Amino acid sequence: MAKESTTIDVGEPSTVTKSSSHVVVDEKKKGFVAAAAGGGYKRGLAIFDFLLRLAAIGITIGASSVMFTAEETLPFFTQFLQFQAGYDDFPTFQFFVISIAIVASYLVLSLPFSIVSIVRPLAVAPRLILLISDTVILTLTSAAAAAAAAIVYLAHNGNANTNWLPICQQFGDFCQATSTAVVAASISVVFFILLIVISAVALKRH
Amino acid sequence: MAKESTTIDVGEPSTVTKSSSHVVVDEKKKGFVAAAAGGGYKRGLAIFDFLLRLAAIGITIGASSVMFTAEETLPFFTQFLQFQAGYDDFPTFQFFVISIAIVASYLVLSLPFSIVSIVRPLAVAPRLILLISDTVILTLTSAAAAAAAAIVYLAHNGNANTNWLPICQQFGDFCQATSTAVVAASISVVFFILLIVISAVALKRH
Repeated sequence: MAKESTTIDVGEPSTVTKSSSHVVVDEKKKGFVAAAAGGGYKRGLAIFDFLLRLAAIGITIGASSVMFTAEETLPFFTQFLQFQAGYDDFPTFQFFVISIAIVASYLVLSLPFSIVSIVRPLAVAPRLILLISDTVILTLTSAAAAAAAAIVYLAHNGNANTNWLPICQQFGDFCQATSTAVVAASISVVFFILLIVISAVALKRH
Repeated sequence: MAKESTTIDVGEPSTVTKSSSHVVVDEKKKGFVAAAAGGGYKRGLAIFDFLLRLAAIGITIGASSVMFTAEETLPFFTQFLQFQAGYDDFPTFQFFVISIAIVASYLVLSLPFSIVSIVRPLAVAPRLILLISDTVILTLTSAAAAAAAAIVYLAHNGNANTNWLPICQQFGDFCQATSTAVVAASISVVFFILLIVISAVALKRH
């Protein structure tokens, strides 16, 4: 009797411990599976983020260099004057070249943070840093694109009320190049909005 | 002996259960306290968000109406011509008035979402909606401000290379009003950046 009771003694707690440890393992497994699923989905977002950044680097370098090299010299000139138009004749276009070059450099510098997000998809800090700095740079990009667009519009259409004459009839190639640069910068604005949306979705809790 | 062994039998599992249930309660308490602390801190962010939106509504309505009412008629005129400048003489300023009015309406419509964030500080959906729509509206605001700034700069300084003469010597009050509107819109851009940072911080996991 005494022996039987001792076997029961040993038996009961051991099964209890077993079952409870089973539960703990199951919970851990569930947690691990959930983290892995969340991690995989967030890693996909991070890879998309990285590819978008690569595309944005290409577009911003293109926009900045097209605007930088936009220059046209008319084939006729007087003794004192040569008719020439370049990006440095317009302060707004200078602002555009400098701003979009800054944006391109920022994008290159942001690549390591994007890589960290791919390696550690659940890390919060790189995501938050990217989201906030992307927002500031988005403002700079859209400001540069809009300011240049206002001047390009004026160059195309002029303004009769203030007697500002259009110059695109004379400097057609120059206007073409600046318009292209503005369109490219506008596309990079869309890319930045997508990047911010990706960061926001990746930041949110499950 | 048999009775003693049964008492031990009952005793051991009961203490195990008690201690484990204590642990569970403690864990739950900890979780509750953490959620409450996170909720309080996020409620503070949500209230700041709401106040920022109220301030931004005031500033954007001010900017839009200052630009809308900017008009100046010079005190001399010829038989056929009266010298007058208004916001509708410049397509860029029309764009500014419409865009900033849209921004102000958006801000009013976003107030309910901000209130939901105050009432339920841990809800993810209203935060995410606010962050994404704020980003789009930030782009619109900064584009309108930058385009108007480019034209205001031109009105002040002109451009000798394209023979666009400054008009602010004649239309001083008009230029003053448009400059004020651009400055107000730029301040609201800063407000939007703050709003996005608040939403990002509130979205992140603890």
